[in-house]
Amino acid sequence: MRSLFEEMAGEASRLTAFAGNTLDRRSEQRPEGCLEEALADPRAAFYASAEGRLLIKFEADKAQPLFTLSELQSLEPEPAAAILLGYRRTGEPRLMMPLKATVEAVPAAIKALDYRSVYQQHLLPPEELGEVAQGASLLAWNRSALHCGFCGGETDAKGGGYRRACANCAKEFFPRTDPVVIMLTVDEKSDRCLLGRSPHFRPGMFSCLAGFLEPGETIEDAVRRETLEESGIRLGRVRYHASQPWPFPHTLMIGCYGEALSEEIRFDSSELDDCRWFSRSEIREMLSRPAEEGPSVPPEGSIAHRLISDWAGERLHSDAFGA
Amino acid sequence: MRSLFEEMAGEASRLTAFAGNTLDRRSEQRPEGCLEEALADPRAAFYASAEGRLLIKFEADKAQPLFTLSELQSLEPEPAAAILLGYRRTGEPRLMMPLKATVEAVPAAIKALDYRSVYQQHLLPPEELGEVAQGASLLAWNRSALHCGFCGGETDAKGGGYRRACANCAKEFFPRTDPVVIMLTVDEKSDRCLLGRSPHFRPGMFSCLAGFLEPGETIEDAVRRETLEESGIRLGRVRYHASQPWPFPHTLMIGCYGEALSEEIRFDSSELDDCRWFSRSEIREMLSRPAEEGPSVPPEGSIAHRLISDWAGERLHSDAFGA
Repeated sequence: MRSLFEEMAGEASRLTAFAGNTLDRRSEQRPEGCLEEALADPRAAFYASAEGRLLIKFEADKAQPLFTLSELQSLEPEPAAAILLGYRRTGEPRLMMPLKATVEAVPAAIKALDYRSVYQQHLLPPEELGEVAQGASLLAWNRSALHCGFCGGETDAKGGGYRRACANCAKEFFPRTDPVVIMLTVDEKSDRCLLGRSPHFRPGMFSCLAGFLEPGETIEDAVRRETLEESGIRLGRVRYHASQPWPFPHTLMIGCYGEALSEEIRFDSSELDDCRWFSRSEIREMLSRPAEEGPSVPPEGSIAHRLISDWAGERLHSDAFGA
Repeated sequence: MRSLFEEMAGEASRLTAFAGNTLDRRSEQRPEGCLEEALADPRAAFYASAEGRLLIKFEADKAQPLFTLSELQSLEPEPAAAILLGYRRTGEPRLMMPLKATVEAVPAAIKALDYRSVYQQHLLPPEELGEVAQGASLLAWNRSALHCGFCGGETDAKGGGYRRACANCAKEFFPRTDPVVIMLTVDEKSDRCLLGRSPHFRPGMFSCLAGFLEPGETIEDAVRRETLEESGIRLGRVRYHASQPWPFPHTLMIGCYGEALSEEIRFDSSELDDCRWFSRSEIREMLSRPAEEGPSVPPEGSIAHRLISDWAGERLHSDAFGA
């Protein structure tokens, strides 16, 4: 009997940023009062968010993103809006605390960094980065669901920010996660892959095409539709490769390879300012050279980097990563 | 050079119900007035929904779910809330029209069937079933977003039901699709798979375990977490198999296989009333026998059926389906 798993090339999802969260979230078994209990737990450790930025202390050049509640007292914490992320193996609760204080009010010893910089500068180890991503997504979702979509009534957070209930009509709401397909189109005949440039990318950077999955679509159909819309390339087979939680604001990136059936690019200039085929050797050069010195790909940790570098390095067959 | 796609067993997603939608949705290129234009198009064809049920005419025993606008006039259509699904290749617009009329007011020649029955009774061909799924998801989402989550203001539908904008604070909202992982856990040593019974299943039916993906999780981590929570079984590797749009109300089912690392089941009795290992021969018997005559699996078209029958029939290696 052949194994179902023998043809797999290891789990690329584990190698993406934000994927390192190991908290026990217990999100479906949270009793009334779980947030209050966690807030009162002397072991509780808090990430802190002010004006959409993460607070980080630098101690001997090491980034330290966790605070005690008393360290945050002067920054106007909003405990009722705190997110209970979950529990470490030792039982220690981890939370994300929103602050009313402005970034200007934060003491000089603490930096307030936007979440993207925290990730791009590799400031945190994978477990903490995963916890921050979870917290950022949940903070953003809670802020977008302060009112009931059915009746407009005010909603209250429950279960440490994992549910909201309408005070007027009692409807319940759960966190939103938006599936996005992101794909590397490969023309196997010419051994090239397709990358595009969005106008908001840094100069010289090219990446995979991507877009929101629509109601009533499979993942594979979304990959084919988005690729056709953005580049004019028709795809045949689609192969899932990896997924990544993406906290901007609460997205699930679903990374796939697409088999090109056509070659002529007609890109959508309302979304892209360039779209080209790159040979495997060009990609290898882009991966090995500093980003400042010519065309480049997204940084390590991004799922686009994973898709591109795993194709370029031929790490797509069994045992390429190890399990 | 080995092909990226050579190890794939064909596209199982294509064999799931609701996946047959071939409309050109043009959802990102919809001009102002696109809905009004479609409503006025004499070729426009309408699905119709009353009290959450789909209207179907039976003509010589053939289910006919499409109406002209004039056929619906007596049933209090709500054109401002109509969903523009997209366009057939000929340019013919397809829409989903909500009706204010109650099910009782529907003429006897027309049946009002709940969406689940339409699917379970195989009443519609794949393309129409896919269009109905898209329309049902979008109707449900629009109804859940009548008010702005940020300020509580009223929202207006735009782009034929693909966006809503707050009349008060101008924030924009987009359709919601909730990713759910559904997985068949396989113990390769004993050649068995794990199925559970939810209390709301029909008598005798067992299915795959499933649950919502949480903020900050990869697909693979969600599969492992849900399996552990519901059954007590620890998983190792996870392999993606297929996806399915699931319009109850607006879900993306992400179907995977999980590699069992443990055997002893401790199932969550708040979610399941049974959970067991089944041998491959037991599963083959369940697949070949009428559901009334003993333990059964979900019907064809469901992604659970796909996961179970593709494992039982060993259709998980290259060229099992054909591309």
